[in-house]
Amino acid sequence: MFYETERNDHGLTYNPLKACVLPRPIGWISSMDAAGRVNLAPFSFFNLVSERPPLVMFCPNGAHVEGGEKDSLRNLRERGEFVVNLATYELRHAVNASAAPLPRQVDEFEAAGVTPEPSMLVAPPRVKESPLHLECRLEQIIELPGEVGGVPNHMVLGRVLGVQVRDSAIVDGMVRPERLKAISRLGYMDYAVTEETFTMPRPTAAA
Amino acid sequence: MFYETERNDHGLTYNPLKACVLPRPIGWISSMDAAGRVNLAPFSFFNLVSERPPLVMFCPNGAHVEGGEKDSLRNLRERGEFVVNLATYELRHAVNASAAPLPRQVDEFEAAGVTPEPSMLVAPPRVKESPLHLECRLEQIIELPGEVGGVPNHMVLGRVLGVQVRDSAIVDGMVRPERLKAISRLGYMDYAVTEETFTMPRPTAAA
Repeated sequence: MFYETERNDHGLTYNPLKACVLPRPIGWISSMDAAGRVNLAPFSFFNLVSERPPLVMFCPNGAHVEGGEKDSLRNLRERGEFVVNLATYELRHAVNASAAPLPRQVDEFEAAGVTPEPSMLVAPPRVKESPLHLECRLEQIIELPGEVGGVPNHMVLGRVLGVQVRDSAIVDGMVRPERLKAISRLGYMDYAVTEETFTMPRPTAAA
Repeated sequence: MFYETERNDHGLTYNPLKACVLPRPIGWISSMDAAGRVNLAPFSFFNLVSERPPLVMFCPNGAHVEGGEKDSLRNLRERGEFVVNLATYELRHAVNASAAPLPRQVDEFEAAGVTPEPSMLVAPPRVKESPLHLECRLEQIIELPGEVGGVPNHMVLGRVLGVQVRDSAIVDGMVRPERLKAISRLGYMDYAVTEETFTMPRPTAAA
């Protein structure tokens, strides 16, 4: 099957694009507006983009259910800090619940049934039940080509200031994926969980 | 365990940052310079960043073994087209081999033992053995904060022009991850393969 995105001539039931870049890590982002109201939402257009300095990006594309930019983006414009909470299999229903299109005054921590816990270095709280948090400071908001629902696409770049990992996920000085059970996003309504792993040695010039 | 990235006071054997954003999809990128020499290399700072228009990003951070920018970035400056080939479990050794630091004149298709096949819409060839290709046109090169080995960090934004999926990976009109067996990058020398999946329905406002 080959199709040109401009023609959208894939002949399938659904647009397959999001099923073609996989697995996508989930940044479960907590943020806070100037008045102290918190927001929590998952984003799968998310990843590391630099190790030195430590930078992550996520794309809060699309419009809020009440119109305008999504809360995560609005909050970052008001208070340039956020936390990336790891989305795990155990927390999968809370992650999904926090993706619901809710009115602005609703606290997604409450709606998702998770506990806000003060962060170490930034104002927005982290998800207490999550085993891993990246506390971040806004570095830059980059406008991307295109728009969805009248709202231009954006990429948020954040600098990781602090990293918290639950001790039970660290074995022999290394953070173990089997202990974290991170979930990831595939296409459609599909998800995967990272449990089994394999290793490959770094290749050398002679490889 | 909590550490501040500026202090790097994690107390572990290795910097855990890359083990904390997982699983990272692998963009196995083929590109071509003005003289027609091809390059193939895997990047895990890679993801979709927009659906409309279809945009992917990857970050070819770090220096080439012979100094200066990596070939993938140089090639994109010379000829603004590339292909994202899906990195699969079956092709894992080839993916790893193509990550080796090789001299500029070496053809990584040959070094990795995979076959260059003409693309449909762009000049760089795709990996014939890979079941999924995204043919892309350079949209923008964004300079990121920081540098590694004297080379500034960059993000490449590309527009997906064409999507090829092997027919055997499509079931009932949907692209099936179980048929693709995409590999992903974790921390250290760890990888995972996406095989089993689960679904969660899209949440509603009442969820």
